[in-house]
Amino acid sequence: MSRTRSERDIISGIRAQLPGDGGRVLKGIGDDCAVLRQDGELLQVLTVDTLMEGVHFDLGWHPAQLLGRKAAAVNLSDIAAMGATPSFALLSLGVPASLPPALLDGFMAGFLAALAEAQVVLVGGDTVQSGGQLMLSITVGGEVAKDQVCYRAGAQDGDLIWVSGSLGEAAAGLALCKDGKDVDDPAWQQLLKAHLDPEAELLLGPILAASGYVHAMMDLSDGLATDLAHLCAASGVGAEVVAEQLPLSSLLRAAAVRYQCAALDWALRGGEDYRLLFTAPEEATLALEALVNKELGRDIYCVGRIVEGDGVTLCDGSQRLDISYQGYDHFAPDLVAHQG
Amino acid sequence: MSRTRSERDIISGIRAQLPGDGGRVLKGIGDDCAVLRQDGELLQVLTVDTLMEGVHFDLGWHPAQLLGRKAAAVNLSDIAAMGATPSFALLSLGVPASLPPALLDGFMAGFLAALAEAQVVLVGGDTVQSGGQLMLSITVGGEVAKDQVCYRAGAQDGDLIWVSGSLGEAAAGLALCKDGKDVDDPAWQQLLKAHLDPEAELLLGPILAASGYVHAMMDLSDGLATDLAHLCAASGVGAEVVAEQLPLSSLLRAAAVRYQCAALDWALRGGEDYRLLFTAPEEATLALEALVNKELGRDIYCVGRIVEGDGVTLCDGSQRLDISYQGYDHFAPDLVAHQG
Repeated sequence: MSRTRSERDIISGIRAQLPGDGGRVLKGIGDDCAVLRQDGELLQVLTVDTLMEGVHFDLGWHPAQLLGRKAAAVNLSDIAAMGATPSFALLSLGVPASLPPALLDGFMAGFLAALAEAQVVLVGGDTVQSGGQLMLSITVGGEVAKDQVCYRAGAQDGDLIWVSGSLGEAAAGLALCKDGKDVDDPAWQQLLKAHLDPEAELLLGPILAASGYVHAMMDLSDGLATDLAHLCAASGVGAEVVAEQLPLSSLLRAAAVRYQCAALDWALRGGEDYRLLFTAPEEATLALEALVNKELGRDIYCVGRIVEGDGVTLCDGSQRLDISYQGYDHFAPDLVAHQG
Repeated sequence: MSRTRSERDIISGIRAQLPGDGGRVLKGIGDDCAVLRQDGELLQVLTVDTLMEGVHFDLGWHPAQLLGRKAAAVNLSDIAAMGATPSFALLSLGVPASLPPALLDGFMAGFLAALAEAQVVLVGGDTVQSGGQLMLSITVGGEVAKDQVCYRAGAQDGDLIWVSGSLGEAAAGLALCKDGKDVDDPAWQQLLKAHLDPEAELLLGPILAASGYVHAMMDLSDGLATDLAHLCAASGVGAEVVAEQLPLSSLLRAAAVRYQCAALDWALRGGEDYRLLFTAPEEATLALEALVNKELGRDIYCVGRIVEGDGVTLCDGSQRLDISYQGYDHFAPDLVAHQG
């Protein structure tokens, strides 16, 4: 029907032309990060993520400093999802001539502060003129011990599926920003922060990876329905997600009422949660929960189970619904319309 | 006067906020590549370069496949300029919805072919929707032996200044493309290729670095006047460039007559030559020339001398002219106007 291709189609087309993993490259395209062998005991992980004004952010409501923090966080999240620790970053900026200098200063202040908090050094960059949109492309590298790297592939039939925090809040925060009303109301701050200033799971990722319990892991950037479908496809398994088990905050439900949206929809397809999604054998449940509670004083949430077959099935009461890849895709406007 | 800042100002502003080099980072922002320590005998080098439609390329005349090759070459050139050998790349694409799929396919075919020729593996990528312009941001990594890495800093008073090939041809090729007349005339193909399909000095860079003679090296991307000014600033020295010594081809001179431009201007300020610029002590002259001739069957060209002080001085007959930073800057339209 359409001459345009989805992001997934474009990436598939590129992957088909690439040589397989091997030699120095343990994992190329197709995970949160590429993984490269290097001399010594550590593997190198690498990721790139690009944020485009009007597609990924709106300067109308996104304070420049928080945008800088978010640009760092979305990349750091990919590193954490490998169980790795980030160490360096490269920044490519496409800057419209009309951009107020103070905005660029604010962006850089937030970006560098977020890198510094994560002990990441900006080692390179490139600044070019952009015709219209502000464009931010960031490459981050890090390291992980050879026996701790966590791929998307590896989930096994019978594994429980976990997420590291509540879902859908970034999508609800986006709805609030688009609406523009009551954004200064302290009641909504948690949702607004989820969209404007998300935090990467920099501590949790390596803790989970080092636990030895995790079979597969990735970060939640495109929504559970899409990201879990990727994890299943990489692992050659299917998944059942139980609607009642999804961690939905009361604040999320309140925002859903306000905007006549389904909180469940935000949680499954909203995207940008930057929580970790991982699977582990059922018998590791108590040990995993205890570990995360001891190390970080936090809970993790079981949302379903890995099964034989393929695809992601939502179990909602007696209903069973295939929700594979029902997520946020920048190339599919009909789905994007569901996001906010 | 203007609210916009030059690329150099923006980068200076960013650098001022960064911690100095140290620890794992041997060299951060400010050279062709960042240089990182890793376990073992090799250093890692990293570079990022972004090409924006309408600023760096024009799809009206740039065949997609050659654009893909060029996008690889401009990054590979930075790796070569450190004396390093490239090994992996990450690609970030900003794709307008209106872009014909065949164009993207052509771009990818050229890009991947150029990487394959250089034995570089594409390990990661990201595809996002762009509002208007096609945007290509590429990160390339590579390795170099610890005792062979060549920085911009290191040039010494008395060094001769060398370039690895003729200058200004990419700028002349751009003028031909803009004009659009006679672009199928075989007579102009060398100039057109210089603009559309430049080649990185992937073999020469490591050969020069391993020779032990080179004090400072970088690639020529913004024009000799600007790039040499960067090298001088990094080294704490000045430079004298002798106009008569600049390698200007007869084809370049013919194009300059056709377009009533100064061939010298193209050579000094045109940019995008992707030749290597390096300095070496005068006593190494014969050995360097013999080495490059033996290994690659090519000549190198001495264009001047490093002197005490600062800045780049052009010696043209009896005239002496400060040409420091008189180059291509995407943020300074008055200079850009001189480019084509």
